[in-house]
Amino acid sequence: MKPSSSPSDRGGAGPAPGGLFDSVLARGGVRERVDDRAWLQAMLDAEAALARAQARVGLIPAADAERITAACRAENFDVAALGRDAAAAGNPVVPLVRALTAAVTPDAVTANAAAANAAAAGAGPAVHYGATSQDILDTAAMLVTHRALGPLLADLGGAAAASARLAETHRDTVMAGRTLLQQAVPITFGLTAAGWLTGLDTAGRRLAQLRATRLAAQLGGAAGTLAPLGLHGATVAAAFAAELDLAEPVMPWHTDRSRITELAGALGTAASAIAKTARDVTLLAQTEVAEVREGGAGDHGGSSTLPQKRNPVAAVAALAGAAQAPGLVATLLAAATHEQQRAAGAWHAEWLPLRELLGSVGSAAAWLRHCLERLEIDADRMRANLELTGGLLLAERVSTALASTLGRLAAHDLVRDAAAEATRSGRPFGDVLRARPEIDDAEIDKLLDPAGYLGSAGEFVDRALAAYRRPGGATS
Amino acid sequence: MKPSSSPSDRGGAGPAPGGLFDSVLARGGVRERVDDRAWLQAMLDAEAALARAQARVGLIPAADAERITAACRAENFDVAALGRDAAAAGNPVVPLVRALTAAVTPDAVTANAAAANAAAAGAGPAVHYGATSQDILDTAAMLVTHRALGPLLADLGGAAAASARLAETHRDTVMAGRTLLQQAVPITFGLTAAGWLTGLDTAGRRLAQLRATRLAAQLGGAAGTLAPLGLHGATVAAAFAAELDLAEPVMPWHTDRSRITELAGALGTAASAIAKTARDVTLLAQTEVAEVREGGAGDHGGSSTLPQKRNPVAAVAALAGAAQAPGLVATLLAAATHEQQRAAGAWHAEWLPLRELLGSVGSAAAWLRHCLERLEIDADRMRANLELTGGLLLAERVSTALASTLGRLAAHDLVRDAAAEATRSGRPFGDVLRARPEIDDAEIDKLLDPAGYLGSAGEFVDRALAAYRRPGGATS
Amino acid sequence: MKPSSSPSDRGGAGPAPGGLFDSVLARGGVRERVDDRAWLQAMLDAEAALARAQARVGLIPAADAERITAACRAENFDVAALGRDAAAAGNPVVPLVRALTAAVTPDAVTANAAAANAAAAGAGPAVHYGATSQDILDTAAMLVTHRALGPLLADLGGAAAASARLAETHRDTVMAGRTLLQQAVPITFGLTAAGWLTGLDTAGRRLAQLRATRLAAQLGGAAGTLAPLGLHGATVAAAFAAELDLAEPVMPWHTDRSRITELAGALGTAASAIAKTARDVTLLAQTEVAEVREGGAGDHGGSSTLPQKRNPVAAVAALAGAAQAPGLVATLLAAATHEQQRAAGAWHAEWLPLRELLGSVGSAAAWLRHCLERLEIDADRMRANLELTGGLLLAERVSTALASTLGRLAAHDLVRDAAAEATRSGRPFGDVLRARPEIDDAEIDKLLDPAGYLGSAGEFVDRALAAYRRPGGATS
Amino acid sequence: MKPSSSPSDRGGAGPAPGGLFDSVLARGGVRERVDDRAWLQAMLDAEAALARAQARVGLIPAADAERITAACRAENFDVAALGRDAAAAGNPVVPLVRALTAAVTPDAVTANAAAANAAAAGAGPAVHYGATSQDILDTAAMLVTHRALGPLLADLGGAAAASARLAETHRDTVMAGRTLLQQAVPITFGLTAAGWLTGLDTAGRRLAQLRATRLAAQLGGAAGTLAPLGLHGATVAAAFAAELDLAEPVMPWHTDRSRITELAGALGTAASAIAKTARDVTLLAQTEVAEVREGGAGDHGGSSTLPQKRNPVAAVAALAGAAQAPGLVATLLAAATHEQQRAAGAWHAEWLPLRELLGSVGSAAAWLRHCLERLEIDADRMRANLELTGGLLLAERVSTALASTLGRLAAHDLVRDAAAEATRSGRPFGDVLRARPEIDDAEIDKLLDPAGYLGSAGEFVDRALAAYRRPGGATS
Repeated sequence: MKPSSSPSDRGGAGPAPGGLFDSVLARGGVRERVDDRAWLQAMLDAEAALARAQARVGLIPAADAERITAACRAENFDVAALGRDAAAAGNPVVPLVRALTAAVTPDAVTANAAAANAAAAGAGPAVHYGATSQDILDTAAMLVTHRALGPLLADLGGAAAASARLAETHRDTVMAGRTLLQQAVPITFGLTAAGWLTGLDTAGRRLAQLRATRLAAQLGGAAGTLAPLGLHGATVAAAFAAELDLAEPVMPWHTDRSRITELAGALGTAASAIAKTARDVTLLAQTEVAEVREGGAGDHGGSSTLPQKRNPVAAVAALAGAAQAPGLVATLLAAATHEQQRAAGAWHAEWLPLRELLGSVGSAAAWLRHCLERLEIDADRMRANLELTGGLLLAERVSTALASTLGRLAAHDLVRDAAAEATRSGRPFGDVLRARPEIDDAEIDKLLDPAGYLGSAGEFVDRALAAYRRPGGATS
Repeated sequence: MKPSSSPSDRGGAGPAPGGLFDSVLARGGVRERVDDRAWLQAMLDAEAALARAQARVGLIPAADAERITAACRAENFDVAALGRDAAAAGNPVVPLVRALTAAVTPDAVTANAAAANAAAAGAGPAVHYGATSQDILDTAAMLVTHRALGPLLADLGGAAAASARLAETHRDTVMAGRTLLQQAVPITFGLTAAGWLTGLDTAGRRLAQLRATRLAAQLGGAAGTLAPLGLHGATVAAAFAAELDLAEPVMPWHTDRSRITELAGALGTAASAIAKTARDVTLLAQTEVAEVREGGAGDHGGSSTLPQKRNPVAAVAALAGAAQAPGLVATLLAAATHEQQRAAGAWHAEWLPLRELLGSVGSAAAWLRHCLERLEIDADRMRANLELTGGLLLAERVSTALASTLGRLAAHDLVRDAAAEATRSGRPFGDVLRARPEIDDAEIDKLLDPAGYLGSAGEFVDRALAAYRRPGGATS
Repeated sequence: MKPSSSPSDRGGAGPAPGGLFDSVLARGGVRERVDDRAWLQAMLDAEAALARAQARVGLIPAADAERITAACRAENFDVAALGRDAAAAGNPVVPLVRALTAAVTPDAVTANAAAANAAAAGAGPAVHYGATSQDILDTAAMLVTHRALGPLLADLGGAAAASARLAETHRDTVMAGRTLLQQAVPITFGLTAAGWLTGLDTAGRRLAQLRATRLAAQLGGAAGTLAPLGLHGATVAAAFAAELDLAEPVMPWHTDRSRITELAGALGTAASAIAKTARDVTLLAQTEVAEVREGGAGDHGGSSTLPQKRNPVAAVAALAGAAQAPGLVATLLAAATHEQQRAAGAWHAEWLPLRELLGSVGSAAAWLRHCLERLEIDADRMRANLELTGGLLLAERVSTALASTLGRLAAHDLVRDAAAEATRSGRPFGDVLRARPEIDDAEIDKLLDPAGYLGSAGEFVDRALAAYRRPGGATS
Repeated sequence: MKPSSSPSDRGGAGPAPGGLFDSVLARGGVRERVDDRAWLQAMLDAEAALARAQARVGLIPAADAERITAACRAENFDVAALGRDAAAAGNPVVPLVRALTAAVTPDAVTANAAAANAAAAGAGPAVHYGATSQDILDTAAMLVTHRALGPLLADLGGAAAASARLAETHRDTVMAGRTLLQQAVPITFGLTAAGWLTGLDTAGRRLAQLRATRLAAQLGGAAGTLAPLGLHGATVAAAFAAELDLAEPVMPWHTDRSRITELAGALGTAASAIAKTARDVTLLAQTEVAEVREGGAGDHGGSSTLPQKRNPVAAVAALAGAAQAPGLVATLLAAATHEQQRAAGAWHAEWLPLRELLGSVGSAAAWLRHCLERLEIDADRMRANLELTGGLLLAERVSTALASTLGRLAAHDLVRDAAAEATRSGRPFGDVLRARPEIDDAEIDKLLDPAGYLGSAGEFVDRALAAYRRPGGATS
């Protein structure tokens, strides 16, 4: 059921026209899966599934369920009118039920409602039977989420795959490791990319797991008892979930919002992994560092007035999307305190941030994938930057090596003094060391070779790639 | 300049059609003042003002400025196309400048650009001269904010005015004061409404103050020096602000986002004041309390399946709108760390939460005004609820009164025991007291009259109303 | 290793003295597991485990590891001095390593450092070998979290168990279901408690899962390569994790903060489940509702000046603790963007909110458990409140029943009119209905019996209890 | 009253010993002004002021007020015991009132309470007369905030002053302007520092304004009527505020939390200004940029294992402190929805985040001041970095200059091509240009001088300094 209502079913309509900020902040396939039409179709899918579930159990005629299902196509309804009429009851389900009932009711009947009898009412009485508005909207939220996670996970996976390729290709490309934005010791670009990979892959796996297990149908009726369905409530609820291929909850979850908050938390984690990677790209792409550069056709990253600029636009847009997440997660967490049987405000407060969170993280994932799939790596510049400090990056190694002969403290002091002198005088660290009698010159050359001081970097890259390729994954 | 570009200038177009959730979560006049078209018009207003400012100083011909101004009408541009083309540079100003340049350039010239000379280029070279994209978008954000605050402040003021009327009308209407959701001592409904008034009025005054003083034009060029304008930069910037009737900043504020964060904080405070009031309405409207009830025509607050229900939909929708604020404020605060001369992501991260924050708080204000202007007060029920505990609400008073004769501790113990007995037995507190020899029966009747134990309630109402009516206001 | 360092090992010191707000906002066992001493001990446990791991691999003498382990007791160190000396390097590990080195170094050596040789240096050179400060502090954070989750999960589990008992005991206790704070249809208190149970149990299971699988040791050295350990890095890292009984990560996670953010999300979800339950208690305990009441000895919930009050203090304190979560989760998510190999500020930004989040949610869980284990249920009052509206709560049922004979619309209109008349006149809904000729009086009595309109309530309670008792749990 | 209770009055006790993370995350004078002892003293100051206010009006004997005032010294009370006993009522005021009452009551009376009479009760009955716990704690929160803002504003002002000095000294020091982390056009370091100044000064002025006008005494009694004080309520409240030198509110603000939320917003803005500045320092201090460097004695910024490192620890710690703000502001905003006359949980939820917010922003301000007061500027390196791209930074200028002769589009194309060639070949941009016949070589040299393309930079610096030095300030 779920896949069949994808936006590609819009007939000839094509994707919805975008907004002013959409190509920057709503890139990728999520946007049209969380827009008004997508929500409307998901609500209609829920109404149709409810009818079919009740027909299965025999509560309504099968013909009514078919008729309702046939009517439940978004293009038959006027989003703006539904939106407008939502004000009186506080949600768009009430006018939708009215419109859907009219759509499955013969005209004569609606014209002369007082004379209606059961037969002439058509499938009208079977619409929305036993359900409350929140049942439909919550179920729609789960469907929308399920559908939106499709492209989101594809883009997150694409970004992870690009990271994996970079990690593999540059497993042994030496670069400066930087901590607190200062050069520290040599690492490899492969290790950097493996770190990106692990973060992105972990986040994607968690989201995929939630998608598979925690997106559940909602059916409880006015206060969670499904009283209008008599003793058939739980049976209908099970059939309803099955019709939609959503999980069946233990009981109605009108006020247990853990499905929403867990999803929010996982999207927040994904946003963090995206932001970490994109932030690194912007730092590595700085004019003074220039170790990576965003590729891309034509005017990507160009500036209207500064012809020399090549801005890392994809990484920047990924950062902007990811930056929406912490606040929206907080909103959803704070809105999860639902009073009694159904909340007075907290429920309504979820709709927009859920949509925004999916859209923003989806956009960030799409941008990051775009960025990483075209990222140009400058290994020569990495090596050159490593030389900037004339070997100071290997100070830890020299200190450790000398400790075995000079003793630890003496070695530390010697190296610290030599480092200070190199910094002060501008002379290469190696030259300063060579001027000291305690150390053998050949030894110095060996110690100052960054490629010889990479420890387990290669092994960690291999492990990250192996974990990524394992079905069970990198989750520890 | 600012007022003339209001949505009522849309020609015959009428308000933009609303979305599925808009009547619930985007009520009132803010929505169409923060939508794509409003942003586009504001961007165009900024470009036009820039041209006029430069013409004033003589940097471009006056005729060019006129031609640009004439072209700067949103209906001449295609929002979706601009949005789509924003991807390459990361913002919609770049394609807008291109489109605006084309619009003011004679056709022959664009067809044969290589042969262009200054005369044949039309006003093209005068477009966007010396500015950077952020200048235009930041200035547009200020204009959008200024325009959106109009209806927002009107609705907030309407809600305050309704609170003032309630406070005045019910200055002496006695009700139970409730703390930690328990009845505590008598108060008046006037005092309750005066509390609403003070919160709403304080928030509105702060927003009005920010609107008048802190919404500033932005003009700095690529990195804040306005170098292309030579020594005329500051002069043009001043003229630019004057053209737009916005404040002139001390210097470009590309990375000083305090205008945005102060506004965010003030909108957050407004949301809190709205939420407090709306929460009270939902609590007072509970079936078991029933001291207030939302009025409203027709099916307001009706339920499709529960014919007896009268949901406080306006208060609920106000709560839902206000609930968006804390998270969005956090997003804007976190996004205010802008690197160096212009930020890599943090700037882009502001656009959507600023729009959402204005829209959500605006909606909440509109709903609260709707709620309060129609709120029905049941003074009889207030009195009846006050009697629910048989006078226990006056226990503090009895205890205080007896202290002068019995001593404080003895009085406290006597009253505590009597209260416990009343609670345990279900007998009215007054009856239990009357059975005690220590107290005169007539005195008991007097002490248990809630209208006699209101302290300064009336005076506080009068003070709140006076402060509200003073221009300087209730700001302490 | 982990369990042996519990606060009960403080020797005779007893629990740390509490702060001014601690009994309200830091109740339960978490506080002393996240305090300074707990962090210090966890850092020392990490240093000791590192030494033992290296001894296992043969990098340092076993005797050194033993000596270091013996020295790693928090009571041997001065928290205030370490804290003070943390300023220079920006974290407390640097002074701790200095102090620990001194502690395992013979005195003569420290007095005459220049003359030191390897033998005389004692175990000093073996301290912190190859590690960076973040290795120790991140590992400590994982240990602290593991230990703090012990009492937190116990209290969350206690609250769930109390909910389960309430659900079982009151499986068939009829009460008014309330939506948007209005009475809607009958439910059972068992269903209410089952909803609490499901939320609390789900949250607890997720936290337990994270505790078992995602709390990982951290060991990467200066930039994640473990270069000082040559080719032994990964082996030592594995041994390090094993010594601490923490998970072994695929690679160092210095800048992959998903462990922290996933935990934050799960704690946020737990806070929401707690807040939902506590909010319900405060609403049900209102003077006008009075269906539940917090039990508790002596002056629990008493007021100094209002002798009649019985405030739901436990629920209120649980709400206050839970209210800290959304903002702190947002902080941790926003702080998860760690630059390059180790972050410039984002890492330091995690320490306090992680501690506060564990402490606040732990406190909220402890208070909620306290609340629910003593909660007094007033089934008579539940029944009485159900009668408040004279049967209006069954309007949906009457409407449904009449539809089969009168037709749906006619039935709805009749019931709506009768409900309106009952509300207006104050006459019981049943009486109004009985005055209508369309309906049989006996039928009316049956329809208005709330116990006959509970649908699947009992079944849902049974399902929730069964899921709670299943090891795999209520996770869908 | 306020200044006299500063931490320097701790007698010989000295500052409270710090915690493990305090020197990093709680630097400066705020910490000890928001600790438990500071809160306790502020609560006692409120109780004492209440007594004196009532004595002024004649409600209690002057001698009682004196006796109470004398007893209200924090060192006379046991914080841990008060904290422990706070659990029953849910706040520490209840046990404090008990303890204070005992302290001003002759021993015989407490021993034989039943026999007490008014005379023997000492000043006991005068303690806390007419007040509710929230009156005392809210007033204490205002006092604590007032006192904490002292050092916070001093440090923020110190950071602003240091920025002003830098702006003045380096008014004409040319450096590369960077946008999206890419070199864009030349600016001056003075302009950078002027931007820091404006942000910091604006934030400080707003906080100072709030401190002077919005920190108000709280006195309302149980539900805001001050009923126990009869008709004297408002008079006593005014006297109470006067005693404490706090603002007098229009009416009790038990549930109008705008004072707290406005303060939170302003602290959030201050945190953003601090973070922006500190972020710039970390970026400019990067190994590859090296234009600034944190000064500082001894081991400041040193690394235990990397002898060559000089980490920008002060900026990093400032960032970490500032990063706490957005989430804490969100918490305070969300907690501002206080029900009815006094809230059930939202009030209690404010205490910790208010304390943390003051402490974190205070720490960030202190670190930033430390950073800026010692910041070393490397003007040579600034100039050298400007040359890195061989003049590409002036491409905008060359393009503009050529437009007058070549036409705008031809000029843009020529410059774009030359820039591309320079980037591709690694040849200096100037050399590439000189190879083109269209341009005069002397003109090229002039155009490529960055000092000639600074536009209004110097003027903006002067304006920022002038605004900073004006009492009314940089607030637009």
